[in-house]
Amino acid sequence: MAKTGQLHLIPVGLSDADPAGWLPPLVRQTAARLTTYIAENAKTARAFLKQIGTDHAIQDITIHTLGRRTSTTEIRQWLQPLKVGEHIGLVSEAGCPAVADPGAVVVGLAHQLGYQVVPHVGPSSILMGLMASGLNGQQFVFHGYAPVEPQARAQQLKSWETQSRKLNQTQILIETPYRNEAMFRTLTGSLHGHTRLCVARAVTGQDEWIMTQSVQAWQSGRPPKLARIPTLFLYLAD
Amino acid sequence: MAKTGQLHLIPVGLSDADPAGWLPPLVRQTAARLTTYIAENAKTARAFLKQIGTDHAIQDITIHTLGRRTSTTEIRQWLQPLKVGEHIGLVSEAGCPAVADPGAVVVGLAHQLGYQVVPHVGPSSILMGLMASGLNGQQFVFHGYAPVEPQARAQQLKSWETQSRKLNQTQILIETPYRNEAMFRTLTGSLHGHTRLCVARAVTGQDEWIMTQSVQAWQSGRPPKLARIPTLFLYLAD
Repeated sequence: MAKTGQLHLIPVGLSDADPAGWLPPLVRQTAARLTTYIAENAKTARAFLKQIGTDHAIQDITIHTLGRRTSTTEIRQWLQPLKVGEHIGLVSEAGCPAVADPGAVVVGLAHQLGYQVVPHVGPSSILMGLMASGLNGQQFVFHGYAPVEPQARAQQLKSWETQSRKLNQTQILIETPYRNEAMFRTLTGSLHGHTRLCVARAVTGQDEWIMTQSVQAWQSGRPPKLARIPTLFLYLAD
Repeated sequence: MAKTGQLHLIPVGLSDADPAGWLPPLVRQTAARLTTYIAENAKTARAFLKQIGTDHAIQDITIHTLGRRTSTTEIRQWLQPLKVGEHIGLVSEAGCPAVADPGAVVVGLAHQLGYQVVPHVGPSSILMGLMASGLNGQQFVFHGYAPVEPQARAQQLKSWETQSRKLNQTQILIETPYRNEAMFRTLTGSLHGHTRLCVARAVTGQDEWIMTQSVQAWQSGRPPKLARIPTLFLYLAD
């Protein structure tokens, strides 16, 4: 029986920082060698491959674009080469594939078809934000996005705060970058004064800025500049 | 005013694999340069420093051991050098500091004292297990340990399953390595047949083995060897 290929989960950068700061050499080597990729966005995937330097000319590397409408039939076809021992890479737009992005469906299919999945080390704003927050890293939850409608949003944030208090659990969420400052106002306006709130902006980037303090302290200071800069919000109730 | 130092969060390996596979070159450089560390375990911290190679003789590097009984007064003293511009490293026993370990208290104090905290890229079994599981990476929760008492444990796992169904949220937990096989039996014995269960064993190690299938499928196969091998369990209800 021929040896089957592996689905390699390759992290990409969160910023335009030098890959030497966020990509281990052997991961870089693995990524450089692959000739087939499944990507959330072909353009950013190509930029990543250019950035790390590939063993093959970039135009010779096949990149399948994974969209919301991609059918599982199509993904199964993309995974076919694994059967004959070829390896395939999966990349996200930023950070680790299959975390806070739609890549999990590809990984799920690979398991279903009996292929080996290999995760690689790289940057994740969720994990790095959590590490740097000083909030509880022994119990935490990542919610993705909060509701957009103002009243529902404030209510949801408060309900997560209740859960945080009950379970001593750090609550983690993201927001569409252009709404970050509004999210900051809602957080500081609806959470309890003693709740500790961490704002982790531009993790690994030039504008990286990570600060944790009580909601009370945030209220009495100047609000941080967050508009259009990727930001993670984390909080832990007292 | 003198520039203050930074608290560097340095990830260490999850296995004895070559650091080139899990540590970016610039992180290695930063870690090699530091002369003061705060560590969960001084012996494993020294082994890590030996593994990556340091700029200073290891006996000249100060390592403070962070235990359950370490007082915040003592940690404040350890952080003093930051005031005069010296940098300090924080390391865990394995993986990323301040995630699933007691390091968060050090990071929390650094924020309180106004020092800059810098997270670095490295391996996290939680994140890598999640990536490789194919389960939902857009909403997930890390619980740490489940209760030990059998009935309470089964009940807790089922209650998390209900939550997983309601919120489409991946549930993540760990177990003391010698109890891994018992945990596997409880999981496959108490969860619903259609729930997808991922077993992520020895992430980044030689025995790495990651597989996701329905509880039903797990029940009809041979149970995996997990005794005394670090393993992460993840599940998502149907």
